Amino acid sequence: MVPDVSLHSDGFNPFGDLIGLEFTCCQKGYSQCGLVVKETLLNPHKVLHGGVLYTMADTGMGAALYPSLAEDELCATVEIKIVYLLPVRSGTIACETKLVHKGKALAVLESEMKGPDGLAAKALGTYSIFKVRKAAP
Amino acid sequence: MVPDVSLHSDGFNPFGDLIGLEFTCCQKGYSQCGLVVKETLLNPHKVLHGGVLYTMADTGMGAALYPSLAEDELCATVEIKIVYLLPVRSGTIACETKLVHKGKALAVLESEMKGPDGLAAKALGTYSIFKVRKAAP
Amino acid sequence: MVPDVSLHSDGFNPFGDLIGLEFTCCQKGYSQCGLVVKETLLNPHKVLHGGVLYTMADTGMGAALYPSLAEDELCATVEIKIVYLLPVRSGTIACETKLVHKGKALAVLESEMKGPDGLAAKALGTYSIFKVRKAAP
Amino acid sequence: MVPDVSLHSDGFNPFGDLIGLEFTCCQKGYSQCGLVVKETLLNPHKVLHGGVLYTMADTGMGAALYPSLAEDELCATVEIKIVYLLPVRSGTIACETKLVHKGKALAVLESEMKGPDGLAAKALGTYSIFKVRKAAP
Repeated sequence: MVPDVSLHSDGFNPFGDLIGLEFTCCQKGYSQCGLVVKETLLNPHKVLHGGVLYTMADTGMGAALYPSLAEDELCATVEIKIVYLLPVRSGTIACETKLVHKGKALAVLESEMKGPDGLAAKALGTYSIFKVRKAAP
Repeated sequence: MVPDVSLHSDGFNPFGDLIGLEFTCCQKGYSQCGLVVKETLLNPHKVLHGGVLYTMADTGMGAALYPSLAEDELCATVEIKIVYLLPVRSGTIACETKLVHKGKALAVLESEMKGPDGLAAKALGTYSIFKVRKAAP
Repeated sequence: MVPDVSLHSDGFNPFGDLIGLEFTCCQKGYSQCGLVVKETLLNPHKVLHGGVLYTMADTGMGAALYPSLAEDELCATVEIKIVYLLPVRSGTIACETKLVHKGKALAVLESEMKGPDGLAAKALGTYSIFKVRKAAP
Repeated sequence: MVPDVSLHSDGFNPFGDLIGLEFTCCQKGYSQCGLVVKETLLNPHKVLHGGVLYTMADTGMGAALYPSLAEDELCATVEIKIVYLLPVRSGTIACETKLVHKGKALAVLESEMKGPDGLAAKALGTYSIFKVRKAAP
């Protein structure tokens, strides 16, 4: 398990930690992360909350994009659409993310979240890429 | 504060509780919920994680739709798109959700999440409506 | 009727012309356009093709954003989500577009397309804003 | 070239015809269609209008879903998100669509539109599936 989202983040990812998200792969244009369904992540129907699957996609997209950026670049989520295919009640969820396209100022990524019964959700998102403002010496 | 997402849920909403989500209004086609930004909800950039804003929208949409359903109906998120407008670092976030359209099998809702500096995110989502399968006596 | 999409475009809008799109209002952050349903715009079910309603939204968003830009700025669609609420078989469709948020490099807009029976579709889109590259003298 | 969108439609597809859309493959869960960029399809920037690429996706999704439906079933677009990656100024555009998931009442599909310079746009959409109401004898 690779606990760092990226070299940029020094492993600081409080909300990822809160939901138990762990990364198994972070490379240029690709990431894999996963978590185990537990009661604190359920919605009122005793199904994994859609916000957890969304958070996997959003975090996984950032993790797949960072290794493609220059040292003085950061990225931020512009928008993501997620569609749900199957409810997940228990077990492990794996999120696989691929970079679809990277321009100068924008990147497009897609994530698939798979549970014990197959593809549970799919997301397509846009990120903005921008230069870090340097602090004065 | 009204801790129940809806009469259907008897207040059971573990993931909502985990992020500190509280409802202040749930009526036919409308809901309001809010939370206070705390360190466990941040992303690697020390900004409120997009997954938290998303979870507010997703939960708020369910809460706005439930009071419009018949007693033997349930709903589930089909898909949601969320777009981020401003980063949020601290303070209180309020999520206001309105029903845009309700058909027999599908409903469309929109949510706006406002932070201390204004509109932070906006979401447009689709829900499916279906009959509850009755348990045998 | 104002046939120009914007002062930037000098009224050149071939695909808008092909579907019979006409603008009735273009101002900073707001536009209105409309068209009359005719047989060439129908889909295999004899309903107005979703691509026509989408084109109204996409064109209307550009028209609402242009008057907000500086003289040396252009914009391009990044992504749009459209959701359909009611089928349209005949009559006039009006599309009303509002600017939701404008940053330095990105803007978010929403459009509502109304037909004879009410709200037929709703769209939420993101545009990129960039400086025009000047031609050499 | 297979001009019929599906056996359901008997080749009646006026808006597809208006933009010059032709199908080269329609099978269970998969379709391919294409068109040649011509001046009537351009936007004010002399680039292929986003609504044309969208129409390819929307029509291609219907064509990929129909062969998966029962004889007494129809489908309709619920919502589609499209993201643009590269502008297209001329040449041929090919749209390839795959069924991601099919449930009883909903299906999810994705389309990729490729131009002379590579992937120009990508779409992720949801369709509803419903029974045809039989006419009285």
